[in-house]
Amino acid sequence: MRMSELSAKSGVAIPTIKYYLREGLLPQGAQIAATRAEYDESHLRRLRLIRALLEVGRLPVAAIKQVIEAVEDETLPTHIMLGIAHYALSPKVEPESGEEWQLARAQVDGLIDDLGWQIHPEAPTRDELAQTLVRMRQLGLPINLSPYVETARKLVSEIEIDTIPFDGPRDAAVEALVLGTVLYGRAFDVLRRLAHESESARRMGS
Amino acid sequence: MRMSELSAKSGVAIPTIKYYLREGLLPQGAQIAATRAEYDESHLRRLRLIRALLEVGRLPVAAIKQVIEAVEDETLPTHIMLGIAHYALSPKVEPESGEEWQLARAQVDGLIDDLGWQIHPEAPTRDELAQTLVRMRQLGLPINLSPYVETARKLVSEIEIDTIPFDGPRDAAVEALVLGTVLYGRAFDVLRRLAHESESARRMGS
Repeated sequence: MRMSELSAKSGVAIPTIKYYLREGLLPQGAQIAATRAEYDESHLRRLRLIRALLEVGRLPVAAIKQVIEAVEDETLPTHIMLGIAHYALSPKVEPESGEEWQLARAQVDGLIDDLGWQIHPEAPTRDELAQTLVRMRQLGLPINLSPYVETARKLVSEIEIDTIPFDGPRDAAVEALVLGTVLYGRAFDVLRRLAHESESARRMGS
Repeated sequence: MRMSELSAKSGVAIPTIKYYLREGLLPQGAQIAATRAEYDESHLRRLRLIRALLEVGRLPVAAIKQVIEAVEDETLPTHIMLGIAHYALSPKVEPESGEEWQLARAQVDGLIDDLGWQIHPEAPTRDELAQTLVRMRQLGLPINLSPYVETARKLVSEIEIDTIPFDGPRDAAVEALVLGTVLYGRAFDVLRRLAHESESARRMGS
């Protein structure tokens, strides 16, 4: 298909498609004449992925570039590629100095070991969880992660992981991961606040 | 205690305390001399609440004012006061025009009815969930909320609701709600991403 058709089918404007081509986010089409290139389904799929990362994941273009490079590097095993997408979605957390941080980080590493979870030693999510624990401790909240661990484990292993097409095109797997992580995460967060409102009304007997 | 002691105990700087007094977020102390006011535990508790709303909930001052007004209006039942805090934490979502939105919103209202959840008809969380459903549908994601509903219900009714001191000071109940919603929400979100990494490594057999 020509660029105009690619634009119509993807809903991405032509100047934006040209920008993605210049930035290397979208592979060049097949040059079939001096002023004409031909695009196919793989370009459509890539545009879907970029939109998902940009609009739903709200990633900056630099982070999108990292993810795309992982998608294109076919020597990377699928789960490493997915890990890169996951890490791009995770906020960057600066480790803090002091004993409080050391303790929280050791607690996170211990938890992951005890669970037997396969998590990269450098995964930024370890620091993200450590930071959350430090804040909880500073604010005097009781720290009992067990129900959250069990809930997350169950949700992911019984439901969410099956929505990722591990054997399909690499673009599609990353897209499913990003959309699932962000949108089902948002849905769960709203449902949790709704459950809070209802349960507190019930307890107050109104 | 004097303002200097209130500042030391709360970790809030004196100019900031004066700002909260001017804005009406913090009640005036008892005037015991022309240039001296006396503060007590209720002021400390209020400062804790303001910090929780500001630093953990990341609410703008205008929203904090609404929550504080609800805390101070003792004619409001506790669960209405907590609802106001909850709504302040929820992003504002503009209803969209078109049939897609109508359908999603009807689906949300139907879900809440079916569950028998006690949710205010004007709760902004209804629109927030409708928006999430519209995005899922536009992106072609399967919409099956059941496992999320069940998970949220269980987590809230069996664990989280018991961390809210309904019978204690009103400030303390709101503080517990805000801290719990934001920090346990964040903890769950990280754990879910960790579970994804581990489960996808397991499935890929590495």
